[in-house]
Amino acid sequence: MSKKHNFSAGPCILPLDVLKKASEAVLNFNNDNLSLIEISHRSKPFVEVMEKAVGLVKELLEVPKGYSVLFLQGGASLEFLMVPLNLMKEKGGKAAYTNTGVWAKKSITEAKNSGEVFVVGDSSDKNYNYIPKGYNIPEDVDYFHCTSNNTIFGTQIKKFPKVPSLMVCDMSSDIFSRKIEVSKFDLIYAGAQKNMGPAGTTLVIIKDEILGNTGRNIPTMLNYNTHISKNSMFNTPPVFAIYVSMLTLQWLKDHGGVEWIEELNNQKAELLYNEIDRNPLFKGIAEKEDRSNMNVTFTLTDSSKEHLFNQLWENAGISGLKGHRSVGGYRASMYNALRLESVNALVNVMKNLEKKLR
Amino acid sequence: MSKKHNFSAGPCILPLDVLKKASEAVLNFNNDNLSLIEISHRSKPFVEVMEKAVGLVKELLEVPKGYSVLFLQGGASLEFLMVPLNLMKEKGGKAAYTNTGVWAKKSITEAKNSGEVFVVGDSSDKNYNYIPKGYNIPEDVDYFHCTSNNTIFGTQIKKFPKVPSLMVCDMSSDIFSRKIEVSKFDLIYAGAQKNMGPAGTTLVIIKDEILGNTGRNIPTMLNYNTHISKNSMFNTPPVFAIYVSMLTLQWLKDHGGVEWIEELNNQKAELLYNEIDRNPLFKGIAEKEDRSNMNVTFTLTDSSKEHLFNQLWENAGISGLKGHRSVGGYRASMYNALRLESVNALVNVMKNLEKKLR
Repeated sequence: MSKKHNFSAGPCILPLDVLKKASEAVLNFNNDNLSLIEISHRSKPFVEVMEKAVGLVKELLEVPKGYSVLFLQGGASLEFLMVPLNLMKEKGGKAAYTNTGVWAKKSITEAKNSGEVFVVGDSSDKNYNYIPKGYNIPEDVDYFHCTSNNTIFGTQIKKFPKVPSLMVCDMSSDIFSRKIEVSKFDLIYAGAQKNMGPAGTTLVIIKDEILGNTGRNIPTMLNYNTHISKNSMFNTPPVFAIYVSMLTLQWLKDHGGVEWIEELNNQKAELLYNEIDRNPLFKGIAEKEDRSNMNVTFTLTDSSKEHLFNQLWENAGISGLKGHRSVGGYRASMYNALRLESVNALVNVMKNLEKKLR
Repeated sequence: MSKKHNFSAGPCILPLDVLKKASEAVLNFNNDNLSLIEISHRSKPFVEVMEKAVGLVKELLEVPKGYSVLFLQGGASLEFLMVPLNLMKEKGGKAAYTNTGVWAKKSITEAKNSGEVFVVGDSSDKNYNYIPKGYNIPEDVDYFHCTSNNTIFGTQIKKFPKVPSLMVCDMSSDIFSRKIEVSKFDLIYAGAQKNMGPAGTTLVIIKDEILGNTGRNIPTMLNYNTHISKNSMFNTPPVFAIYVSMLTLQWLKDHGGVEWIEELNNQKAELLYNEIDRNPLFKGIAEKEDRSNMNVTFTLTDSSKEHLFNQLWENAGISGLKGHRSVGGYRASMYNALRLESVNALVNVMKNLEKKLR
C-alpha cells in the first residue's frame, strides 16, 4: 500500500506496521478466531494487553515507583475537570495555570469552578505564539498546571519551570516524543491520538501519594483512585484504542525507544525549520526559541502564491497541511510515526515553489 | 474464517461483515490511502460517518423530533453521574430509581450524591432474579430511572411503567434488540458494546427540552448541552467505536431493522428457554415472566455434571458461556449478531448431555 505523507494534527499518522496488526486483530485476535472487539475485557488475552500497555509506558518513560499508569476515557477535556476535583482542596483551593493556547484556556475555565485560579503566565497577547517564562508561582497553590506542547499554535515548553507545588502537565501532543523526567511531575495526562494511538483513550500517569487530600466527595468515575484500584477496568475500557496504543508503544520500543525518536524528531524539525528560515517565500509563526518539534506553523510571505503551493503539495501526496482556523497559514504536524522522507517531500515542494517563482 | 459461537456478555459478538469492513478501514478508509484512525475527526469523511450513525439511530428507533442523538465516552458508568447532574434540581432534587442489579445499584449510588433518591422497586432480596412491579413513584420526583435489561442476572423489563415524571432508562444491554417507543422516554443511554458496536462509545438519546432546568453549574464535559451544541464533536470523539457502531446499525437496517431482529431474538430466546424448561438437567435462574431475551441465565440441576457439560460445549465451538461470579452457573448472551444456528448448537449440546447421561 502506498501511503500518503500524513501531516494531520490529530488524530494523526500511526506506524504502518501498527495499522496492519490492528486491522488483523479486528478479524482474528490472538489466533483464537474471535475479533479483539468481541471478547470480554476481563478475558485473559485482553487483560494481558492492558498489562503490556501499562508496562510499556513505564518502561519507555522510566516511570519511577509510586506512580500509577491509567488508560481512561473522555480525552484531555475530561482531565481538565478531574485534575481540580482530585487535587484542589475543597476549602480554599488554589491552583496556578499557564495560558498558552486553546486547550490551556479550556483547562483554566474548568478549574475555576473548583477554586481560585492564578494565571501566572499568559501568551494570549500575541495569539499564543510564544511560551511565557520567568513567572512567579504563589507558594500556597495546590498545584501548577501547564501544557507542554500547543498543537494549534506550534509552541512547546523546552525547559519546564521549577514549581513550589504539585506539578501537573497536559502532554497530549508531545508525550513519547522526547525524554522527560517523570519524577519531576506529579500528574501527566495525554489524549492518545497523537504519538500514542487512535482517539478513544487518555493516558494518565499519577503519583499515588498526591491523591485523597482535598476533602472533596469526588464522583466515582472522576476519582483517579477508582481507576487505580481497578487497573483501569472499573468499567469496560476502550478495548481497541488501548490495544492500538500498546502496539504503537511496542513499535517505539522495538525501534529504540524515546531516545531514538527524540533524535529523529529533532532531525525532522531542523530540516523543516531550516527551510522555513532559508526560503524567502515562507515565514515561521512561533517565536524561534519556543518552536514545537511536533507542530510546525508557518505562512507564505505572499499569500497570492497559496493556490500554487497547495497544488504542489497535494500533487506530492501530502495531506493534512492546512493551518488551524485560529492561526491560518500552514501547520505541519510531525508526530513520531511521520518519517523523515515525508519531511523531505515537503521541503522539496517548498524549494520547488521557489524555483517556479524565480 | 470459521467463527466461534460467541455467547460473550459484552464486549460481544458483532456481525462478521461489520468486522471485515472495520478491519479494512483500519488500513484504507474511503479508498483514500489513509487509515480511519489517522485522519482528522473534522475531515469530511469522518463527519459523514458521525452524521450517518446519528441518522441510523433516528431511523431504526423512529426517534421523534425534539430529541438529540449523541455519541459520548465513559460508558454507562459516566451516565450514572451525568443523569442526576443534568436532571436533578440543585435545591431539593429528588429522583426515583429501581434497584434491579449491579448496574442499577451503581446508578443509585451516584445519584445519591446529587439529591434525594427513592428506591421504589428493589429485587435485591432474591439476588435480582425478578423485575419489581406495581411500585409507586412519588409525584414530585425530577425523574424516574430504570434499567431495561439486567445483563448479569438475565432479567428484562417487558412492560415499562407509566411514570408521573421524566422517564430515564439505561438500555445498555438491549437497545436495538426490540421495538421501543422513544416518545415515552426522556433520556435513554446505552454503552455501545452489546448490540451497537465495540466498547468505547456511549449512545445517548435525549429530549432537548428537559435540559437546563436544574439550577446547577454543570461541568462542561458532563453537560449534555455541550455535546448537543457540537454534534458530539466538542472534543475528539472515539472515531473507531463510532465508525463500527455505524456499520453495525447499517447491517441491522439492511437486514430489516428492529422489527426483523426482534422477531429473530424472540425465536432464539424461545428455542433456548424451551430447552431449559424441557431438559431435566437444567434450570433457569430468572423468574419466567421476567426472562431476558438477551442474557439467558441457567444452572445444571446436578452440579457434578459441570465438567462434562463444559467439555461438550467447548468442543462444539461455543465460547463465553460462563455465568457471572455473582450468579454462578451459565449465561448465554444472545445479542443481535448471534445467529440462530449458534443457539441451535447450544441446544444440541444440552440434548447431547441428556443422552450421554441416560
